[in-house]
Amino acid sequence: MTPPPAPPAPPASPLPAAPPLAARPDEDEDDHQLSAADLVELEEARRLREERIGQRPGTLTIPPDALPPRLLLTTYDEEFFHEQEYAGYDELRAFFRQHPDKKHWLDVRGYNDLDLIERLQQDFNIHPLQMEDVLSDYQRAKVEETDDGLFLVSRMTEFTRLFNIEDDQLSIFTGPNYVLTFQDDYDDCLEPVRLRLRTGRSSLRRRPPLYLAYALTDVVLDHYYPTMAAIGDYLETLEERIFQGRSDRRVLARILHVKKDIVRFRRLVYPEREKIAELLRMPDDEVPEEIKVFFKDCYDHAIQALDLAESYRETVSSLIDLYMSDQSNRANEVMKVLTIISSIFIPLSFIVGLYGMNFQREGPNGRVNVLNMPELYSPWGYPILLAFLALIVVFQLVYFYRKGWLTNK
Amino acid sequence: MTPPPAPPAPPASPLPAAPPLAARPDEDEDDHQLSAADLVELEEARRLREERIGQRPGTLTIPPDALPPRLLLTTYDEEFFHEQEYAGYDELRAFFRQHPDKKHWLDVRGYNDLDLIERLQQDFNIHPLQMEDVLSDYQRAKVEETDDGLFLVSRMTEFTRLFNIEDDQLSIFTGPNYVLTFQDDYDDCLEPVRLRLRTGRSSLRRRPPLYLAYALTDVVLDHYYPTMAAIGDYLETLEERIFQGRSDRRVLARILHVKKDIVRFRRLVYPEREKIAELLRMPDDEVPEEIKVFFKDCYDHAIQALDLAESYRETVSSLIDLYMSDQSNRANEVMKVLTIISSIFIPLSFIVGLYGMNFQREGPNGRVNVLNMPELYSPWGYPILLAFLALIVVFQLVYFYRKGWLTNK
Amino acid sequence: MTPPPAPPAPPASPLPAAPPLAARPDEDEDDHQLSAADLVELEEARRLREERIGQRPGTLTIPPDALPPRLLLTTYDEEFFHEQEYAGYDELRAFFRQHPDKKHWLDVRGYNDLDLIERLQQDFNIHPLQMEDVLSDYQRAKVEETDDGLFLVSRMTEFTRLFNIEDDQLSIFTGPNYVLTFQDDYDDCLEPVRLRLRTGRSSLRRRPPLYLAYALTDVVLDHYYPTMAAIGDYLETLEERIFQGRSDRRVLARILHVKKDIVRFRRLVYPEREKIAELLRMPDDEVPEEIKVFFKDCYDHAIQALDLAESYRETVSSLIDLYMSDQSNRANEVMKVLTIISSIFIPLSFIVGLYGMNFQREGPNGRVNVLNMPELYSPWGYPILLAFLALIVVFQLVYFYRKGWLTNK
Amino acid sequence: MTPPPAPPAPPASPLPAAPPLAARPDEDEDDHQLSAADLVELEEARRLREERIGQRPGTLTIPPDALPPRLLLTTYDEEFFHEQEYAGYDELRAFFRQHPDKKHWLDVRGYNDLDLIERLQQDFNIHPLQMEDVLSDYQRAKVEETDDGLFLVSRMTEFTRLFNIEDDQLSIFTGPNYVLTFQDDYDDCLEPVRLRLRTGRSSLRRRPPLYLAYALTDVVLDHYYPTMAAIGDYLETLEERIFQGRSDRRVLARILHVKKDIVRFRRLVYPEREKIAELLRMPDDEVPEEIKVFFKDCYDHAIQALDLAESYRETVSSLIDLYMSDQSNRANEVMKVLTIISSIFIPLSFIVGLYGMNFQREGPNGRVNVLNMPELYSPWGYPILLAFLALIVVFQLVYFYRKGWLTNK
Amino acid sequence: MTPPPAPPAPPASPLPAAPPLAARPDEDEDDHQLSAADLVELEEARRLREERIGQRPGTLTIPPDALPPRLLLTTYDEEFFHEQEYAGYDELRAFFRQHPDKKHWLDVRGYNDLDLIERLQQDFNIHPLQMEDVLSDYQRAKVEETDDGLFLVSRMTEFTRLFNIEDDQLSIFTGPNYVLTFQDDYDDCLEPVRLRLRTGRSSLRRRPPLYLAYALTDVVLDHYYPTMAAIGDYLETLEERIFQGRSDRRVLARILHVKKDIVRFRRLVYPEREKIAELLRMPDDEVPEEIKVFFKDCYDHAIQALDLAESYRETVSSLIDLYMSDQSNRANEVMKVLTIISSIFIPLSFIVGLYGMNFQREGPNGRVNVLNMPELYSPWGYPILLAFLALIVVFQLVYFYRKGWLTNK
Repeated sequence: MTPPPAPPAPPASPLPAAPPLAARPDEDEDDHQLSAADLVELEEARRLREERIGQRPGTLTIPPDALPPRLLLTTYDEEFFHEQEYAGYDELRAFFRQHPDKKHWLDVRGYNDLDLIERLQQDFNIHPLQMEDVLSDYQRAKVEETDDGLFLVSRMTEFTRLFNIEDDQLSIFTGPNYVLTFQDDYDDCLEPVRLRLRTGRSSLRRRPPLYLAYALTDVVLDHYYPTMAAIGDYLETLEERIFQGRSDRRVLARILHVKKDIVRFRRLVYPEREKIAELLRMPDDEVPEEIKVFFKDCYDHAIQALDLAESYRETVSSLIDLYMSDQSNRANEVMKVLTIISSIFIPLSFIVGLYGMNFQREGPNGRVNVLNMPELYSPWGYPILLAFLALIVVFQLVYFYRKGWLTNK
Repeated sequence: MTPPPAPPAPPASPLPAAPPLAARPDEDEDDHQLSAADLVELEEARRLREERIGQRPGTLTIPPDALPPRLLLTTYDEEFFHEQEYAGYDELRAFFRQHPDKKHWLDVRGYNDLDLIERLQQDFNIHPLQMEDVLSDYQRAKVEETDDGLFLVSRMTEFTRLFNIEDDQLSIFTGPNYVLTFQDDYDDCLEPVRLRLRTGRSSLRRRPPLYLAYALTDVVLDHYYPTMAAIGDYLETLEERIFQGRSDRRVLARILHVKKDIVRFRRLVYPEREKIAELLRMPDDEVPEEIKVFFKDCYDHAIQALDLAESYRETVSSLIDLYMSDQSNRANEVMKVLTIISSIFIPLSFIVGLYGMNFQREGPNGRVNVLNMPELYSPWGYPILLAFLALIVVFQLVYFYRKGWLTNK
Repeated sequence: MTPPPAPPAPPASPLPAAPPLAARPDEDEDDHQLSAADLVELEEARRLREERIGQRPGTLTIPPDALPPRLLLTTYDEEFFHEQEYAGYDELRAFFRQHPDKKHWLDVRGYNDLDLIERLQQDFNIHPLQMEDVLSDYQRAKVEETDDGLFLVSRMTEFTRLFNIEDDQLSIFTGPNYVLTFQDDYDDCLEPVRLRLRTGRSSLRRRPPLYLAYALTDVVLDHYYPTMAAIGDYLETLEERIFQGRSDRRVLARILHVKKDIVRFRRLVYPEREKIAELLRMPDDEVPEEIKVFFKDCYDHAIQALDLAESYRETVSSLIDLYMSDQSNRANEVMKVLTIISSIFIPLSFIVGLYGMNFQREGPNGRVNVLNMPELYSPWGYPILLAFLALIVVFQLVYFYRKGWLTNK
Repeated sequence: MTPPPAPPAPPASPLPAAPPLAARPDEDEDDHQLSAADLVELEEARRLREERIGQRPGTLTIPPDALPPRLLLTTYDEEFFHEQEYAGYDELRAFFRQHPDKKHWLDVRGYNDLDLIERLQQDFNIHPLQMEDVLSDYQRAKVEETDDGLFLVSRMTEFTRLFNIEDDQLSIFTGPNYVLTFQDDYDDCLEPVRLRLRTGRSSLRRRPPLYLAYALTDVVLDHYYPTMAAIGDYLETLEERIFQGRSDRRVLARILHVKKDIVRFRRLVYPEREKIAELLRMPDDEVPEEIKVFFKDCYDHAIQALDLAESYRETVSSLIDLYMSDQSNRANEVMKVLTIISSIFIPLSFIVGLYGMNFQREGPNGRVNVLNMPELYSPWGYPILLAFLALIVVFQLVYFYRKGWLTNK
Repeated sequence: MTPPPAPPAPPASPLPAAPPLAARPDEDEDDHQLSAADLVELEEARRLREERIGQRPGTLTIPPDALPPRLLLTTYDEEFFHEQEYAGYDELRAFFRQHPDKKHWLDVRGYNDLDLIERLQQDFNIHPLQMEDVLSDYQRAKVEETDDGLFLVSRMTEFTRLFNIEDDQLSIFTGPNYVLTFQDDYDDCLEPVRLRLRTGRSSLRRRPPLYLAYALTDVVLDHYYPTMAAIGDYLETLEERIFQGRSDRRVLARILHVKKDIVRFRRLVYPEREKIAELLRMPDDEVPEEIKVFFKDCYDHAIQALDLAESYRETVSSLIDLYMSDQSNRANEVMKVLTIISSIFIPLSFIVGLYGMNFQREGPNGRVNVLNMPELYSPWGYPILLAFLALIVVFQLVYFYRKGWLTNK
C-alpha cells in the first residue's frame, strides 16, 4: 500500500456550514459557568482538538513537537557485529541491502521528517494505520500481525525525580531479518540490550530477530519494577509522615497524586499483559515455542506488576482513611481544649459574677436588708469562696482526667 | 414486510376498566409524599409516558420534535462524483435508479415525514424494528445484519460550552452499492468524510460502501477524544481551584456534574466497543478482512476512550475526597480561632471578675475583715494583676504556637 | 404426573423431637437483644415461615391472599375473533375444544381455586414444579422448555404514586395453538396487547402463539421505561431540592428509599435480560428466527433499562455525597456564627470586666494608691475605652471578612 | 483403599530442629504489640492450630467436641417402610444386607467413634479425602463423583434467636440403593423429608435414591429463606429504630453484626449455587434428566437467595449511611443549642459588664468627669438598657428563626 | 543450555550517553518535593534498582543476602529409606547416581553458591528462566511443564508474633525419580512431610515423586489456615477493644496494618488457586487422575482460604466504619459537655452581670432615680434572684435530660 498523493482542493459543498455553537439561554448557566478567562481557555483547547479530527485513516501527521530523527543501525549475526549512527537514510539503506543474510536492528528516534517516515513505510511494507499508531501521542500496548512478522507497541515508564510517571512509546516491527523500532525521544531504556548485543556470542546474536523484539519488550517490562518500587518507597515515606502526626493538606494532595500515578500505571501495564497473552496464543509458526517460553516469563512479570499496583491502591486507600481520621482527631483535640477551659472557667466566672452584684445591705430607707448577700460581710467570706472555687477546679480536673481528656489521647 | 394500515376501532372489551390508582392509606404517606405541586407534576409525566406503551412493535412514530427531512445524495465512484441536496424523494430516487453501478450515500437528516420514512423503508428493505430503532430517542450503539448488508447505530457526542455532553444518533444502513444514514439533527460531525469524498482518487471512492460506513463510524469515534479531553481540561481547572483553597459548594456540584457526564459517556462508548467487537467477529464474506483492519483501529480507539473515562472517574473520586477534606479542614480552622480566643480570654475574664467582687473589708459592725480581698487595697495590686494577666496570655500563646495552631496550618 | 392424594397420618417417628431452641447463656445477649416485644414479633415471623418448609416439591399451595380466579378466553385467527369471560372452567373448556384449529389465549387472573388450578395443570400438561412457580410469591424471570412449547415468567413493574415499585408476576405457557397466562392480580398492563388483538388483520393474529407470548413480554418490558423514568424524575426533584439547600433528614431517607427501589428494579430486570438471552440461544425449531428478531429487540430494551438503572445508582451516590457535604457545610455555618460572636464579645467582656474591678485608689490606711486603676479617674477614660472597644470590633470584622466568614459562604 | 496402621516412631532426623521463633528486635514492636495477656493468648491459639498441620491427607481425625454417633436407618420402597434407630452398627449392617433390593437411607449423626467411621468408609467405599471432608469443621458445599454415585456437601443454616447464623454440615453419599448422610449435630432440618417418606405412595418412595438426595438438598435450601427473611425482619426493625431517631452506638454494632451475617450467608450459599450448576452439567447417565428438572428448581432458589443477600447488603450500606448522617445531625443539633445560647447571652453579658465598670464621675481632685458613664446617672438609664437588651434578644431570635435553627429541623 | 561465559568488554558505543536527569523547572516542585534528605534517599533507592535491569534473561544472580546452601538428600522407596545432609554436591551426586531405581528428594536450602546452582541446573536440565525464578526475590505461585516433569512454585506463609505475614518461596521440580526443592531459608514448614516419609509403609513412599510434590504443596496450603486464623483472632481482639470504647489512633493503625496483611495474603493465595486449577487441567499422562484427586482437595482448600480472606476484608471495613463512628461519637460527647456547661452558666452569668451594673439610684443632682435597679434595694432581692437562678438551672437540666444528653449516651 503506497501513501496517496496530497488531496486536490475539494469541490464546493452544497451543504451550508453549521452555525457556530451559541450559548443556550435555557440552561442553568450560572451554576456551571466558570470565569470568563477559564471559559475562553477551555474553548480554545477544544477548538484546537476538533481541527485534528476526521483525517483519512492512515494519514501521517508529524506531531508538532517531534525531534529530528536519529538513525542507528546495528547489523549482527553470531560472528559479525557492526553498529553505526547514520546521518541520512540512503547510506543506511545501501548498507542494509548489502547484508541481506545478516540480522539488522534499525532504531529510529525522533519523527520530524515526513519524507523519511514515508520511505521507511514503503521499504518495510508498513500498513498506514500502523504507521499512524507509531506517530500517535498515545497508543496502548498491543501486538498485530503484519505481512512480514509482528508489530508490537510497548510503553516505557519512568518515575521521575518529581514523582511523576513519564511514559514513552516504543514501536517494534519484526521481519525475517530485521527489527525496526521507533521512539519519540532520544533517551531510552534499551541500552542494556545494546550492551548485550555488542558482547560476542550472546544468545541474542544467535537467535532470530523476534528474540531481539522479546529482549526489548523484556527490558521495558523490567523498568516497571523500579517505577513501582519508587512509588512504594514514596508511599512508605508518606505513611511514616502521617504516623508521626505530621500530616497536613499537602500530604493528602500527595497521596492523591500518587493514586493518580498508580491508576495511570495500571492503565499502561494492563494492555501490556493482554498483548503478551495474545502473543502467547499465536500459532507456533509465527511465534516459535522456544521464544514463547521467554514471553511467558514476561507475562509473569506483567501480572506481578499489576498485582503490586493493586496492593498499592489498597495502601493509598488506607492512607486516605488514616488521613481523614487524623483530621477528625485533630478537630477533637481542639474541641477538647476548648471544652476543658470553658467548663472550668465559665462556672467560676458565674460565681465571681454573683459576688460582684450590687444588692444593697442598706435599703434606701436605711433599713438593713440582712438577706442581701450577707456573705460579703462575713470575715471569712473571701477565703471560703476561694477554697470553693479551687474545689470546683479540682473536681472538674478529676472528671476530665477520668474521661481521659487530659492525657495525650 | 409492508407497513400495516391504521387499525380499525377496537370492539368493546368484555373486561372492566382498571380502577384509577387510588392513594393507599396503609402506607407511610407522610414520609415520602412530596409537595402537592411536585406530585401533580410527577404524575402527569408518568401518565404521558404510559400512553406511549404497548404499540405494535415496528410501529413508526415520528418524535414530536422531529425536524423536516433534508435529503443529501452523494453518488460517486473512482471517476465520478455528484453531490446534491434534493427537495423531494421522487427525483432523488430516479437519479439513484439511473446509476445502479455507482456507489451512493443517501444522508437523511430530520424525520418529520412519515410518508418519506415509509417509502425509504420499503425501497431499502428495512425491517420495521430497525426503522423503529432509527426513530427512537435513544438507541445504544449496535450492529445487526440485514438482508443487504449491515445496520449500524453510532452515537455522536459533543461536550458543549456549558459542559454538558450532548449526543445524537447516527443510523447507518449499508447495501451492495449504497450507504443510507439517518440523523435527527442538521448539524453533524461527518463533514470531514464529505470533504474526503469530494476529493478525487481518495481510497474512500475506490473502496466498497462498507468502507464509507467505517469512515463514518471512525469520525464519530474521533469525536470522543475532544469530548473527553474537554472533560479532562475541566477537571484540571476544578482541581486547581480546590488546590488553591477556593472550593465552595458549587465546586462540589460541578464535580458531581462532571461525574454524571463521565458515567454517561461510558454508557455511550461501552456499547460502541461491543459493536465493533461484534463486527470483527463477523465472517469475512460479510465484513472483508481488509475492512476489518480498519475497524480494529476503531476498536483500539474505543478502548482507549473507555480507559480515559475510567481514569477520569478515579480523578473525580479523588477530587471529592479532597473537597470533603477541605471542608473538614475549614471547620477545623474555624474551631481553632474559637478555641484560641476563648482559651485566652475566658480565664482572664474569670480573674477580673474575681476582683470585681464586692467582699467588704469592713463588716456591718465596722470590724475590718482583713481576709476579704486585701489585694484590692495593696498599692501594687493593679499592676501586679496586669502583669499576671499578660503572663497568662504569653503562656497560652506559646502553648498554642507549639501545638502549631497559630501558624497558617 | 397426577397430583397425589392427601398424605395419611405419618407413623410414629422413632426419633425424639428436637428440643425447643433455648437461649444460649454463653452468648452476649445484652448486645444484640432487642426489646421483648420486638423479639416476640421476630420469633413469630420466623416460626410461621418455617412451617411452610419442606413440602413435597410440586405441592400446590394457594397463597392465603389469592383472589378468586377470573378466566378470559380470547380465540382468534386471521379471520376470526372471539373474546369472552367465563364463570366456570367447563364451559370454557368446551369452547376451547370446539376450535382446535384456532389460536387461543387463556388468561387466568387470581388463583383462589385449587381445583381449577389442578385441572388446568392436567389439561395443559404442566409440570408440578412449574405450577408451583406460577403460584409462588416471587419467581425470577426465566424461560423453560416444556413438552408443548415454552414456559416464561416475567415480572411486571409499576412505580406507584407513593414512589414504591410494585411488581406482579406474569406466567406464560405457550403451546401449538394456545397461550396460557397466569396473573395474581386483576389489574394488569396487557391491555394494549388485547387492543391490538381485537383489531383485525394485525400481525398478532397472523403469527403463531409464540408471537403473542413475545408481545406480552414486550409490553411488560415497555413498562420498565415509565418506571425508570418516574424514578429519574423523582431523583431530579430531590437533586433540585438539595441544590436549593432545602435538604433535611427526610431527604436522605427518600434518597435511600429510591436507592432501594433501583436495587430492586435491577434485581427484577437482570434475570429478564438473561431470560431473553437464553431464548435467543434456543434452537430455531423451538423459537423460529423470525420471532427471534423480535426478542432481540426486547434484549436491547432490557440492556438499556439496566444501563439506566446503573446510571441512576451513580446519581444516588452523588446525591448522598452532596447531602453529606451539605450537612457538614451547615455545621460549619453554625460554628462560624458561634466563633464570630464569641471572638468579638469575649475579649470585649474581658476588658469591661477589667474596669469593673474594685482595686481601691485609697488604701485602708488612707494612702492613695496612684497605680490602682488610674484610668477610672481620668476624665476621658470612658470615651477612650469605648473607642478602643469599637476599634477591636472593627479590626475583628475586617479579619473575619478577609477570611470570607461574613459573606454568605 | 484401607486406612493405614498407626505410624511407628520416626527415625531420628539428621536436621537440627528449627530454633524457636524469637522476637525480632528490628521491627516496630511498640506500634503493633498488644498487651502481654493478649499476646500470650494469641500465641497459644496459633500454636494449637499449627500442631494439627501436615497430617497425611485422608487421616481421619475426630473433632474434639464430636457427639457420640446415632444411627437411623430408613428402609423403603414403594410398598415397604421401616425406620429404626440402631445402637450398634453390626445389627444395622445385617438388616441392610438382608434387603439389597430395597432403598436405604442411613443417617449418621455425631462422629465420636473412629472405629464406626472407618467401617462405614470401608463398607461404602468412601475415598479417604471425602471422609476427611465429612469430618472437617467447615467444608464448602460441593459435589463430587464417586465410584457408586455422588458425594454432596450442603450447609444447613439457622438464624438463631440471638441473631446469629449457625451452620451445620450435611454430607450425602448416594449409591445404587442407598443414601448415606452425615451430620455433626442431633438437631437437623430434615424432618419434613422423613415425614414425607413415612407417608405412603409418595414420589420419594418411588424414585431412585438420588431423588432422596435431591429432597435433602432442597429442604436445606428451603431453610435459607426463613434465615434470610429473619435477617430482613431484623434489618427492618433496625431501620425503623434509626428512622425514629432512637439510634445509638449499639445500633451500629448491630448493623455491622448483621452485615457479617449476610457476608457469611453469601459465603455459604454461593458454593451451593456452584454445586448445583455443576450437578446440572453432569452427564445424563449420572444424573438423569428427570432428576435434573428438580435440581434446576433448586438452582433457581439458590440464585434467589443470593439475590436477596445482595439487596440486603445494599440495605445495610444504606443503614450505615443513615446512621452516620444521624450522628452528624445530632452533633449539629448540639452545636446549634450552644451557638444560640452563646450568641444571645455573650453580647448581653458584655453590655451589662460595660455598665458594671467603675469609671468615676468624680475624679480624685473632685472634678466631675461628665463623660464618664453619664448613662448611669440618667433616671431612665436602667429601663432603657433593659429595653435595649430585650431588643437584641428579639432580633437574634428572629435571625435564628429565619435561619431555621429554632424549628425542630 | 550451558551458562554463557562472562561477557567481554563491550565495544565503544556510537551513541552518546543519556544526559543525567535534570530537575524540570517547569513543574510544580514545591508541592510534591519532599525534604532534601528524603529525596536523596528515594533517589538512591531508585538508582540501585535500575542498575539491576536489563540483564540477559536467565542470568543467574545470587541475591546479596542469600545463605550458604545446605543439601539434604532423602532417598526412599517402599522398602528403603535413607536421609542425609551432605556438605558437598559431589558426594551427594554420586549417591544419587548409585540409586537410579529409588526415589529421591533433594532439598536445597540457601543459594549462596553460584557454582552449585549452575551444576544443579545442568544436571537436572533446568531452563535458565526457571532457575531465575527460583532465585528471584518474589515469584508468584505457578506451575510449568518441564522436559522431565513439572516445575511448581509455592509461597509459604507465616503470621509472625509481631503480626506480620512473612512469606518464603518453595520451588519444586519433579522428575521421573526425583523431587528437587529450593528454599531461601533454613526454617521451613515441610517437617510434617519429612516425618511421614521417615515412617515406613506410608503412601508417600509407595507413590510416584509427583505425589511428594503434592504433599509439599498441601503442607504449604495447610499453613495458610493458621495464618488466616491468627489474623482472625487478631481482628477479634481489635473488635473487642473498639466495642469496649478503648479505641485510639493506634487501633486504626493496627486495623489498616491487618488490612495490608489480608491484601497481601490474597495476593499470595490467588495465584496458588490458579496454579492448582491449571494443574487439574493438565492431561492425565502428565498428572495422573489418582494424583489429581488429591490436588482437587488442595483446590478446595485454596478457595476456602480466599473465601476467608474475603470475609476478613469485610470485617476490616466494618471495623473502620465502627472506628470512624466512635471518633465522631467522642467528638459529640465532648461537644455535649461544652454545650451543657455553657448553656447553663452563660445565661446565669448574664443575670448576675446585670445586677453588677452601677446604675445609680441617686443622680448627680441628688434626685432619686427610682427606676434605676430598684431590685437592688428590695429586702428580698438577693434570695429571690438566687431562687430564680436555681429555677433556670433546673429547667435547663430537665431540658437536657429530656433530650437525652445527660444520660450516658
